[in-house]
Amino acid sequence: MSDVRADTGTSIDFRADGRAAIDWAADYLERVGELPVLARVEPGEIRARLPARAPDDPEPFADVLRDLDEILMPGVTHWQHPRFFAYFANSAAPAGILAEMLAATLNSVGFLWRTAPASTELEGVVLDWVADLLGLPAGWHGHIEDTASTSTFAACIAAREATGGNVIVCSEQAHSAADKAARMLGMELRKVPVDAEFRMRANALGDLSDAAVIVATVGTTAATAVDPVPALADACQASGTWLHVDAAYAGTAMVCPEYRWAFEGVERADSLVVNAHKWMLTPMDCSLLWTRRREDFRRAFSVVPEFLRTPDAEDSWNLSEYGPALGRRFRALKLWAVLRCFGRSGLQSYIRGGVELAERFEGWVDQADGWEVCAPRHFSTVCFRLEGEDERNRRLLERVNASGEIFISHAVLNGRYVLRLAVGQLTTTEDDVRRAWDVLRREAERPR
Amino acid sequence: MSDVRADTGTSIDFRADGRAAIDWAADYLERVGELPVLARVEPGEIRARLPARAPDDPEPFADVLRDLDEILMPGVTHWQHPRFFAYFANSAAPAGILAEMLAATLNSVGFLWRTAPASTELEGVVLDWVADLLGLPAGWHGHIEDTASTSTFAACIAAREATGGNVIVCSEQAHSAADKAARMLGMELRKVPVDAEFRMRANALGDLSDAAVIVATVGTTAATAVDPVPALADACQASGTWLHVDAAYAGTAMVCPEYRWAFEGVERADSLVVNAHKWMLTPMDCSLLWTRRREDFRRAFSVVPEFLRTPDAEDSWNLSEYGPALGRRFRALKLWAVLRCFGRSGLQSYIRGGVELAERFEGWVDQADGWEVCAPRHFSTVCFRLEGEDERNRRLLERVNASGEIFISHAVLNGRYVLRLAVGQLTTTEDDVRRAWDVLRREAERPR
Repeated sequence: MSDVRADTGTSIDFRADGRAAIDWAADYLERVGELPVLARVEPGEIRARLPARAPDDPEPFADVLRDLDEILMPGVTHWQHPRFFAYFANSAAPAGILAEMLAATLNSVGFLWRTAPASTELEGVVLDWVADLLGLPAGWHGHIEDTASTSTFAACIAAREATGGNVIVCSEQAHSAADKAARMLGMELRKVPVDAEFRMRANALGDLSDAAVIVATVGTTAATAVDPVPALADACQASGTWLHVDAAYAGTAMVCPEYRWAFEGVERADSLVVNAHKWMLTPMDCSLLWTRRREDFRRAFSVVPEFLRTPDAEDSWNLSEYGPALGRRFRALKLWAVLRCFGRSGLQSYIRGGVELAERFEGWVDQADGWEVCAPRHFSTVCFRLEGEDERNRRLLERVNASGEIFISHAVLNGRYVLRLAVGQLTTTEDDVRRAWDVLRREAERPR
Repeated sequence: MSDVRADTGTSIDFRADGRAAIDWAADYLERVGELPVLARVEPGEIRARLPARAPDDPEPFADVLRDLDEILMPGVTHWQHPRFFAYFANSAAPAGILAEMLAATLNSVGFLWRTAPASTELEGVVLDWVADLLGLPAGWHGHIEDTASTSTFAACIAAREATGGNVIVCSEQAHSAADKAARMLGMELRKVPVDAEFRMRANALGDLSDAAVIVATVGTTAATAVDPVPALADACQASGTWLHVDAAYAGTAMVCPEYRWAFEGVERADSLVVNAHKWMLTPMDCSLLWTRRREDFRRAFSVVPEFLRTPDAEDSWNLSEYGPALGRRFRALKLWAVLRCFGRSGLQSYIRGGVELAERFEGWVDQADGWEVCAPRHFSTVCFRLEGEDERNRRLLERVNASGEIFISHAVLNGRYVLRLAVGQLTTTEDDVRRAWDVLRREAERPR
């Protein structure tokens, strides 16, 4: 038997290949700012360069690194680029990257407390740490899901189970995760109109008697609007509706007390999602989901078959009983590493720096002839446009992204096509934001 | 602004800390066999050793590594241990570990093709590679979910959408993922009895007119039984029911032609799940989900809001349109690295080696007085017990796991408590399996 095992180890030397991989990663992080942000390939181009079948025999890890460079890299859109300004720009900090490697090394599978006590308990602890950093009430139960889509989806399941309602209520500006949850669960979706600043109109909620949940958003996807959570909490309290708050992006800003106005009323939520992989420097995926109704969550998800039965004392610790998945990675490790290596002050500096850069960009747009800011800027995201036709803005977006110098995205607000610039990368400087503004003006002035 | 950014970088030197992390991982993989397999801590013990709050200021990454050793390691159940024989023992191969670090470095978020062309296309390619390795028909659409729970759940959603049915049909021995999917989706679950070898009784399916999906299992969780897929495919065809095959564990064995008998009829499935993180040496999480009804899947999950609209040609490539999550990690990279570094022959050796070890263990049990094998052993998992009372086996399980020398799990078959030994670790040798047998006999003979 030992021959069989030896065979499978010959193609890799963990220590030597590991150093090569670390060097690759370090080089990448140093030079990513020189690459075109948006990949310059056509659909199918990367696939065409790859073999149609797996190799018959083991290949050295060095070949993997080589092909990563030669075949895959031209197809990478660089989320770690200092001029990635699209969607909600995020950043995987070095400490999180290394911790992800350590988590893969341990390969803990936390479906039960006993299969991964350290993973399970660290997850609880770091969720408590973040709750404290964000000013949330003590005692909420937190765990990690992959994405905000899943977190919101899980909250809808818990809400349906707890309330008996079958309607998801959210604003027109809520994330598509609400639409998708309704679709997957066969629930009804009811969209509430927004006010002039893209906030859900609490006076337009209508009858909530058949509602399971209101999904309120703190920092909407398009305009980073903040729904009136206190009024929505009142409505939920009166009707027995579950209040879920989606603060996937903006939640992290609450680490700075000056943004806490946006969390007013969140202490009354039944569940809350904040994505650590969005603005908390943690590599994908790490969506933080808290609830103050722990037992309702557990009732909705706890299916414990015989093969997973353990002594009672351990049971309530099993995090698989609070969400859809059974198998769970050791995701807490990367968040822990990031929180340790930044600390409260490091996170605050990072958030404030990003907001300040966005504020400067907003100022330049605001003062420029022919440009307009299209929504109040609360955090690090600016919605703006060239005055005039949507088509002009659409073409501008295509041109600036094709330049490779920056990558921005778009939204539709009040029926108009608008451009969005989101600051989130750890390495973004004022020079990068100024470059974005230069590229935008240059491409706007270029003859078609 | 540059000061703000510099502050946040001071606590880590990626190249130096990266080497330290690689050394930590290499040392761990070398010495893991000397540690107690099952963590020896009580619930709450790890939590109690951790601070109640995040640090105020940045700490060096070296402190993270130190606390990983001193605080967390005692709470780690070692899935990478050569004598981890519980559940379905799995293994994160070195190439997969390093690739996970590279994926975190790139931090690609693949919700659209254009946000991560390389990730999206490599995912399609490696799923094709694995389909080819397993002898599946060409042309199926494959993508990666986190776990088999999610894959089966997604298949149930697609099935309900495509068929209009609201019942999930599976055997009594199916994985709890089916129960959980039914619970989450508000669908009805119908469990079909099994035969003497724990296979779903195709002649006991009953009326399928309201069925959305039959979840057939190739390699059940308890006994690794193989449901009669051809007969179930006939029944599905006659009634218009979706056929989903859960081969989360055993599917990987199909890389060896001699096990392909277990995949008979799978070519007629509407969807199929095989977990690369179970027996394909890939770190958690990497659940492979194929469908031959690509458009039905897409219809069930495609919710494309304005902010995600891209030119039409790209749209059908977006993998977020084929499953629950929107954000998607670059999971294909680790699977690609593993397939490259093992090749078909390396995987075959690994699978055959594991099956051979299980076969030997089965032989020892079979020939020993007072012990019995409780189910046919098809792959690398043996169900067995001490003759006599369930309680005796329950106590035996506790004692052997408390020894720290091995970790095994249990199941209930025909109402009897049975022990399960699953071989799956890359580093497990015949000595390790013999040690398991020695520990079992020693603890069985020890006075209570």
